[in-house]
Amino acid sequence: MVIDCHGHYTTAPKQLQAFRDEQIAALKSSAGAPPKVLASITDDQLRESVQPQLKFQTDRGTDLTIFSPRASAMAHHIGDATTSLDWTRHCNDLIHRVCTLFPDNFVGVCQLPQTPSAPLANCVEELERCVNEFGFIGCNLNPDPSGGHWTAPPLTDRFWYPFYEKMVELDVPAMVHVSASCNPNFHATGAHYLNADTTAFMQFLQADLFKDFPTLRMIIPHGGGAVPYHWGRYRGLAQDMKRPLLTDLIRDNVFFDTCVYHQPGIDLLLKVVPVENILFGSEMVGAVRGVDPQTGHYYDDTKRYVDAAAIDADARSRILEGNTRRVYPRINRLLE
Amino acid sequence: MVIDCHGHYTTAPKQLQAFRDEQIAALKSSAGAPPKVLASITDDQLRESVQPQLKFQTDRGTDLTIFSPRASAMAHHIGDATTSLDWTRHCNDLIHRVCTLFPDNFVGVCQLPQTPSAPLANCVEELERCVNEFGFIGCNLNPDPSGGHWTAPPLTDRFWYPFYEKMVELDVPAMVHVSASCNPNFHATGAHYLNADTTAFMQFLQADLFKDFPTLRMIIPHGGGAVPYHWGRYRGLAQDMKRPLLTDLIRDNVFFDTCVYHQPGIDLLLKVVPVENILFGSEMVGAVRGVDPQTGHYYDDTKRYVDAAAIDADARSRILEGNTRRVYPRINRLLE
Repeated sequence: MVIDCHGHYTTAPKQLQAFRDEQIAALKSSAGAPPKVLASITDDQLRESVQPQLKFQTDRGTDLTIFSPRASAMAHHIGDATTSLDWTRHCNDLIHRVCTLFPDNFVGVCQLPQTPSAPLANCVEELERCVNEFGFIGCNLNPDPSGGHWTAPPLTDRFWYPFYEKMVELDVPAMVHVSASCNPNFHATGAHYLNADTTAFMQFLQADLFKDFPTLRMIIPHGGGAVPYHWGRYRGLAQDMKRPLLTDLIRDNVFFDTCVYHQPGIDLLLKVVPVENILFGSEMVGAVRGVDPQTGHYYDDTKRYVDAAAIDADARSRILEGNTRRVYPRINRLLE
Repeated sequence: MVIDCHGHYTTAPKQLQAFRDEQIAALKSSAGAPPKVLASITDDQLRESVQPQLKFQTDRGTDLTIFSPRASAMAHHIGDATTSLDWTRHCNDLIHRVCTLFPDNFVGVCQLPQTPSAPLANCVEELERCVNEFGFIGCNLNPDPSGGHWTAPPLTDRFWYPFYEKMVELDVPAMVHVSASCNPNFHATGAHYLNADTTAFMQFLQADLFKDFPTLRMIIPHGGGAVPYHWGRYRGLAQDMKRPLLTDLIRDNVFFDTCVYHQPGIDLLLKVVPVENILFGSEMVGAVRGVDPQTGHYYDDTKRYVDAAAIDADARSRILEGNTRRVYPRINRLLE
């Protein structure tokens, strides 16, 4: 079995974006309250909407996608806690419906109703709802709900601890994933995403978060941002700072996906990062949608790169399935 | 000849930091004006201070270091334009003195008196002073003078154009280099530096800056941040955005140094980025100061990685010397 740990519902029916547009329009005017109810979406519309993902699964030889709402649309910087909660619940509800319609193809991961500088109580409740009621197996945690202004405390700050306690209790991991950028310096998928990945890793290196939460698990997407390319720099920084070896520091707690869109990048990742800490992911249908003229294949068909990499069958199997079952253990209940 | 394009004066005599400490202390209290004059530093003290750099040059087989003030100490977010100008001039004066004492070993690049949201007039003047009076060959340009809050406009914004006009007129390039971070999310050398590199590259990809300034040259340090590792992602993003091919986009304008502290990283860089766009650099004495137990050599002895890479002699010669002479043409006058 091949599990893709990183897929977003970027192809949701247009009613979802219409709700969001209305919600944002209401925030900007005094002409009435924002909507609460999402316009009706039929099961057929949902089935139709995920045909691109199902086709890619078939074409690329992957089986199951860990599926979450569109990351760039989370936009936690818009509105307040109520805005974020209303939007988040609709997004998660749709993921649940898709997973229910296609239980062999999709398993859910939730968006969180984060909002800048507000406490995380809403997030704890939404995580419980999605895990306990919907059978979701993880969440996407935004380290920068401000959308590029980076006003939240680092992920190792006690601000986040109540949420981590719930993650540990439910035995679900988080993918550290920012959303849209409202800072003109940062292109979302070309800078903000990768910067957040790099930033999160360094935060984990600096502090003892995983001593406080030995079973807390974080996936750093997009191949770990800049980290594997600068593995020597990070080994050296850890050494200068008298921190543990990187391999010990990340062992049971920090994982990278394979959303790196060319063979040399994947080869580097597999060479420097322990195989136990790598989960197959493609981010399809996501940031890069074209076909690479150098290969004739989609840039984000990352399974091709993993298949072509110089690793043995055991390593490949761990990356494509085993590690993901270990990091997202609730998936095993669904696959029995 | 081997030219290291990236060295900072991290070993300056203690009088320099004492000046800065006094300056910052004065900003925080009402007990008098900040100092204007740097305490006397003798030539012998300067000679003594750069012995580590000279020893590394000898040990590693490099000849000349393009030498600039300590990047993390620029701290443009502290104080106002006057604070920044006073501090910057002292830093640049010392670089000039070191380069005068060791003209075969060091050539100067200047810090700029940037300050958040102020116009760049001060910077134009300081660049002229350093190039015309001191014979400096370039500058370090900070894309985020706020120190981690990213409040300045993107590097492609017209805000920066008066400064670029002066760079073009003087025929000097800029290394895009942030400084210390006052945002607790960003470790300076472990996150902020690499994020800035990644961010700058994506800004260049999004806009037509180099159509407006065909001879403007920017060096992105630290091996280009996350960019070479994600070269496929950037090729794909450029394609989706209908932008030029990356190789065309960077050809005469954007360059990466080799400050990547392990062999697999350098191998990736040399594999994906055109050799014409790579300049040898080590950042010594810099961010990572230890010896790699896996190799028995300093992490930042990047010449070893370049020497060991699978490239031909012509490519190696361009990276170690030729490209740098092309990007910093004023160096040729000094080496005649």
